[in-house]
Amino acid sequence: MRTLILAGLLLGTAVSAQQMSATSNAQPMGEAEKAAMLDAQVSADEQMGWLKTMTAGPNHLGSPHNQANAARIEKLFREWGWQVKRADYQVLYPTPISTVLELVGPVTKTLGGQEPGIPEDATSNNLAGALPPYVAYQGDGDVTAPVVYVNYGLPGDYEALARRGISVKGKIVIARYGGGWRGLKPKLAQEQGAIGCLIYSDPQQDGYGSADSYPNGGGRPPAGVQRGSVLDMITYPGDPLTPGVGATRDARRLTRETAPTVLKIPTLPISYADATEILSRLKGAPVPNEWRGGLPFHYRFGGSDDVKVHLAVKSDWTPKMISNVIATLPGSAMKDEWVVRGNHYDGWVFGAADPLSGEIAMLSEAKGLGALWKAGWRPKRSIVYASWDGEEPGLLGSTEWVEENLAELKQKAVIYINTDGNGRGFLGVDGSQQFQSLAGRVAAEVKDPQTGASVADRWRAGVRAKAFDGLRGDQQALAAAELGGDQPLGPLGSGSDYTAFIHHAGVPSLNLGFGGEGESAGSYHSIYDSYDHFVRWDDPGLAYGAALAKVAGRMVLRLADADVLPLRFGPLAGAARSYLSEIRTLIDTRRREDDKRAGLSAEIYRLGSDPRDPLGPPLAKPPTPQIELAALDNAITRLEAAARAFDGAISANGAALTDSQKAALNARLKGIDQALLSPSGLPFRPWFRNILYAPGRFTGYGAKTLPGLREAVEERRFDDANREAGIAARALNDYADRLNAATAVIR
Amino acid sequence: MRTLILAGLLLGTAVSAQQMSATSNAQPMGEAEKAAMLDAQVSADEQMGWLKTMTAGPNHLGSPHNQANAARIEKLFREWGWQVKRADYQVLYPTPISTVLELVGPVTKTLGGQEPGIPEDATSNNLAGALPPYVAYQGDGDVTAPVVYVNYGLPGDYEALARRGISVKGKIVIARYGGGWRGLKPKLAQEQGAIGCLIYSDPQQDGYGSADSYPNGGGRPPAGVQRGSVLDMITYPGDPLTPGVGATRDARRLTRETAPTVLKIPTLPISYADATEILSRLKGAPVPNEWRGGLPFHYRFGGSDDVKVHLAVKSDWTPKMISNVIATLPGSAMKDEWVVRGNHYDGWVFGAADPLSGEIAMLSEAKGLGALWKAGWRPKRSIVYASWDGEEPGLLGSTEWVEENLAELKQKAVIYINTDGNGRGFLGVDGSQQFQSLAGRVAAEVKDPQTGASVADRWRAGVRAKAFDGLRGDQQALAAAELGGDQPLGPLGSGSDYTAFIHHAGVPSLNLGFGGEGESAGSYHSIYDSYDHFVRWDDPGLAYGAALAKVAGRMVLRLADADVLPLRFGPLAGAARSYLSEIRTLIDTRRREDDKRAGLSAEIYRLGSDPRDPLGPPLAKPPTPQIELAALDNAITRLEAAARAFDGAISANGAALTDSQKAALNARLKGIDQALLSPSGLPFRPWFRNILYAPGRFTGYGAKTLPGLREAVEERRFDDANREAGIAARALNDYADRLNAATAVIR
Repeated sequence: MRTLILAGLLLGTAVSAQQMSATSNAQPMGEAEKAAMLDAQVSADEQMGWLKTMTAGPNHLGSPHNQANAARIEKLFREWGWQVKRADYQVLYPTPISTVLELVGPVTKTLGGQEPGIPEDATSNNLAGALPPYVAYQGDGDVTAPVVYVNYGLPGDYEALARRGISVKGKIVIARYGGGWRGLKPKLAQEQGAIGCLIYSDPQQDGYGSADSYPNGGGRPPAGVQRGSVLDMITYPGDPLTPGVGATRDARRLTRETAPTVLKIPTLPISYADATEILSRLKGAPVPNEWRGGLPFHYRFGGSDDVKVHLAVKSDWTPKMISNVIATLPGSAMKDEWVVRGNHYDGWVFGAADPLSGEIAMLSEAKGLGALWKAGWRPKRSIVYASWDGEEPGLLGSTEWVEENLAELKQKAVIYINTDGNGRGFLGVDGSQQFQSLAGRVAAEVKDPQTGASVADRWRAGVRAKAFDGLRGDQQALAAAELGGDQPLGPLGSGSDYTAFIHHAGVPSLNLGFGGEGESAGSYHSIYDSYDHFVRWDDPGLAYGAALAKVAGRMVLRLADADVLPLRFGPLAGAARSYLSEIRTLIDTRRREDDKRAGLSAEIYRLGSDPRDPLGPPLAKPPTPQIELAALDNAITRLEAAARAFDGAISANGAALTDSQKAALNARLKGIDQALLSPSGLPFRPWFRNILYAPGRFTGYGAKTLPGLREAVEERRFDDANREAGIAARALNDYADRLNAATAVIR
Repeated sequence: MRTLILAGLLLGTAVSAQQMSATSNAQPMGEAEKAAMLDAQVSADEQMGWLKTMTAGPNHLGSPHNQANAARIEKLFREWGWQVKRADYQVLYPTPISTVLELVGPVTKTLGGQEPGIPEDATSNNLAGALPPYVAYQGDGDVTAPVVYVNYGLPGDYEALARRGISVKGKIVIARYGGGWRGLKPKLAQEQGAIGCLIYSDPQQDGYGSADSYPNGGGRPPAGVQRGSVLDMITYPGDPLTPGVGATRDARRLTRETAPTVLKIPTLPISYADATEILSRLKGAPVPNEWRGGLPFHYRFGGSDDVKVHLAVKSDWTPKMISNVIATLPGSAMKDEWVVRGNHYDGWVFGAADPLSGEIAMLSEAKGLGALWKAGWRPKRSIVYASWDGEEPGLLGSTEWVEENLAELKQKAVIYINTDGNGRGFLGVDGSQQFQSLAGRVAAEVKDPQTGASVADRWRAGVRAKAFDGLRGDQQALAAAELGGDQPLGPLGSGSDYTAFIHHAGVPSLNLGFGGEGESAGSYHSIYDSYDHFVRWDDPGLAYGAALAKVAGRMVLRLADADVLPLRFGPLAGAARSYLSEIRTLIDTRRREDDKRAGLSAEIYRLGSDPRDPLGPPLAKPPTPQIELAALDNAITRLEAAARAFDGAISANGAALTDSQKAALNARLKGIDQALLSPSGLPFRPWFRNILYAPGRFTGYGAKTLPGLREAVEERRFDDANREAGIAARALNDYADRLNAATAVIR
């Protein structure tokens, strides 16, 4: 039958589970056969149907349509042969009772409120039960005050304000989206003494600066608003009342008042139409050039008493229930090694691009794996597919599940593979670099829907073509593309459900998706993130939804069935080396700057500035000393050698390993990434424990690498820098030791 | 009397000519005394009066008010004791008979026409006799065609269009101002086959991106238009019919049809209000990010048949007369060495900032020098103050005067000092670096009106403070500022009346003015460049008008009275060295890029591009070879040695020179800069002869250094590059020889 089936595949015929079941007693299927079986179940048309159904109503945490979606997901998995359980948690999740925003000077004008529907977008006219624009976990409050424009509202912006003698104490700040994570803006504002915070979507970022305004293009329309969470996830994500433990019904809880991740000042996100009413009236000195956005007026700092805003927010803080849908195919040979794959299913309003375009790709994979299962295939390792609830407010579902099952995951999970939406264009993969080679091989096997080339070739061509168009590009990626190598995996920060896995539990993780040609930025977290928007501007026909299922499904198949996990450590060691090089450059640059800064005086700034916008001297800071990096450098050298030895030995002897060698190798590689966890966690935020990557304290989503060391240098905590360098050195030495022990098995 | 007078100065008392005349028979006045006498005549209030009178009516070439201004200037100089002559020329200068601009598809809309008056600006409501928005020396024509947006309309922009398969043949292009000189835009458009050209003022450049819109700030208002010349001044400036010779009444003339500097296609400058009507309707692929301006819509390439414009321009091409006002104070000891100083007096409409804010500073200097003359002072060298006519359409007055008097100027002019407007802020000086030390000394003696520091200290503080604000800055300037050195002089390109002096006649030149804090960019070449705009937003109280007169007046005084010209050649040799280094870097960069480009194929671009905006591969170009630079490098090394020897000898022995040594030194230094002239001129434009600097062929105003060599490399004319390197080497060797001969006198 094998020949027949293969002929069917070659002819593009769908292969039914019935046909395959005939082979279930034959020798195990090869990789190509399994992949073909998976692909045969992936249907873009079917994804269109799922997307349409799941985006038909508001699907935020706790909404009826979201609960119905969970039931749909559960039902599908069960139909496809998976074992399904729910993992429910009780979380603190505020929803707005009332939001008030009005300009009270120099004129009175009501601002804010729900976004308007448009005729071309069906669900935008059906908003019953939809959340109005707000940000979750701000503080309740009712304030009236003058307004100060603070650019992105990040630390450098407050330094620029301080040098001009502008304070936000007692004021309401207005920040534009971008530059760093949303939640940092009200957090830093309240630390600076502001009593309220507005965040607006500047059109330069995701409005007409990026695309025609929806519905003429995918760009954010004038009245579009970006909802989101402002939970202080840099301290810890998940339910704010149960840090470090699962938010089960009887877990010990903090109170809302004592939870450090809940902010204190009222905050609202607003549209650029509303922002224009405020910003265009501000007085004061003009802002620096790089503070200007795309609105058609001259941006100024504001702060004077004549432009005032009234901002009031009141939320319902009663506990809410969330429900993850956890589906499993149990492993045969290595049941206690888990390949975990996930995507969240809750959105902010209709959630078409974010998250359902990823969830439906995951459903296609699950259907394909289910078909294989029904055909008699049994994965060697256990496969766990998780559909997370409550990602949007604070990675609630995934974090609580990881916290509840922490010990088991640290022991059993060999990888977590995340998606969180998808679009047209180029494959992007970030995460644990020991899986870079696997990602590269899978990308070489899947065809790009638009060009017919492989996804890997298209990525390489894209990097090279863009580099020649003068677009900014990563030099390492360009070098890899020029050499025909694998796409280098960037470090993971935060912003999706891999966070608890990689940063808290030490489970190596990947995050992937296609993008770069869609226009979903303009609908992000608004009522316009709809089926109509998605199929018109983001991934028409869901061709890339199908491609994503093929890529992620192949990864899961390979990982679940490999006798020995397809790990290659050269890219990981190389990444560690480049992170240290960057930090050395940072220290050198800082030292040169500090030297020059020492020669600057208030008098130079008085003479050198435009008197209309006087600058004081740069804030005094302790000069950067040399940091003791020798131990860390030596540890990375050891890791590089260990990686070369392992990768070389696998390449030479991998095909000829005995079963007992394979078992010994698996045993020694299992949990190797636990070596990367710092025993004490990172400074200021012990929940984050990975010494190689973390979301930046002052970037939020963006990753910092060797974060304990790097952030200590950046923030001039030089004692911390020396200590964190030592912690990282011990971790990497431990990693090299474990790797050498594994290599010993096969050499 | 001397003591008394000095006491008066210290007390800040004005010193009258009558008082000074008492000293006229005493020993010669010292530098400080002469400077004090000059300063005493400089009155910002008086400048306000002159500015108000001279800007009271339209003062473009040939207008009655411009002729009256010439008469006013002549009268003032005569009153102050100068000998005055007119230098009149007959030039081709077109003025518009009719200009038509209308959108004819997808809707019909009349655009263009005169800018509207505003209540806050008196003269803007009194436009009788004012020119409508137009550009001089475009072609007459009447065309209707689809529109293509071409960004700045420079060579790289047409390459970007070509790679997308977009042609402008038979189309009307619309370019934004900026990126390079205005006149290049229609010139390149017609070379590309376009049949019409529109140039608009994007608000990012000089509208709300730079300041609040006038009258709330100095920024260009929505209906503001930048007039200007599009004469092909890169080939040669001045009257297009008489290249190389003075446009006297009986000069031999080309015809308008055979004059290579007159363009062929109709071209109009337009406001951003009008540009919005066109650009916001364009279809086609979105433009690259760096092509986007500050208008609130998504910029697209256009080119489709549905958006069409009707453009028609007809000009009066009859000959016109221009009249330079040339005022002289004859020298005593060295009558045949001329210190030439100039500013133009014709504007585009009322011309407050450009040019009259510079002209009135020059009048203050002339009054001061006149007072010294009346007090009995006689300059050693002759002083020539020129008020140029017809600068705006094409540097007509200065160019024709230089061409008519070429032989005499090459022999006698020791320097030309130019201004062309002024504003609040920091002193900027560009030009022949052998005068860098003089400029630094003068800047150290004049006080900045706002801060009370010296102009030199404020410049240094400004560079250092801005560098720490992360603003882009010149690294050489920063180094000089940190060391307390003189401001490095940038190279002169074109755009004002120094052009014929330095580039054609080889007369070393300086161009200076204050700026950086005013908001005159938004009124440039519009009806809003008015007295009201200037005194409100550009230089309130004309405090910097007074400072400019003190700086330029001191330079003239020093140069006219120095026994030996205050030349120091180290900065010139250093500049030549850094120009060569830049070109080596350019060649190295090009060679690396060419290597990488060789590995790129059409297939890579097909795969790597967004199919909605497909890119072809970079245009095929001959790879960059090594260029023979050894002779030029050696010549610069000789020049460096010669400069060190001269500067050292002057420093050691300069104070003790005998009269015969001084005479010998003057004789050997006289005309030393003639060595910089290339016998054959620059490729494609023999009128430009300076081997060290030129306006760029594809920048227009912006300077290119070692231009024959640099542009040949940039444009991949590698035979030219080798030849031009040799020409520059011979010129610099000649310069070093002459310098060594001078040094021999004093060593």
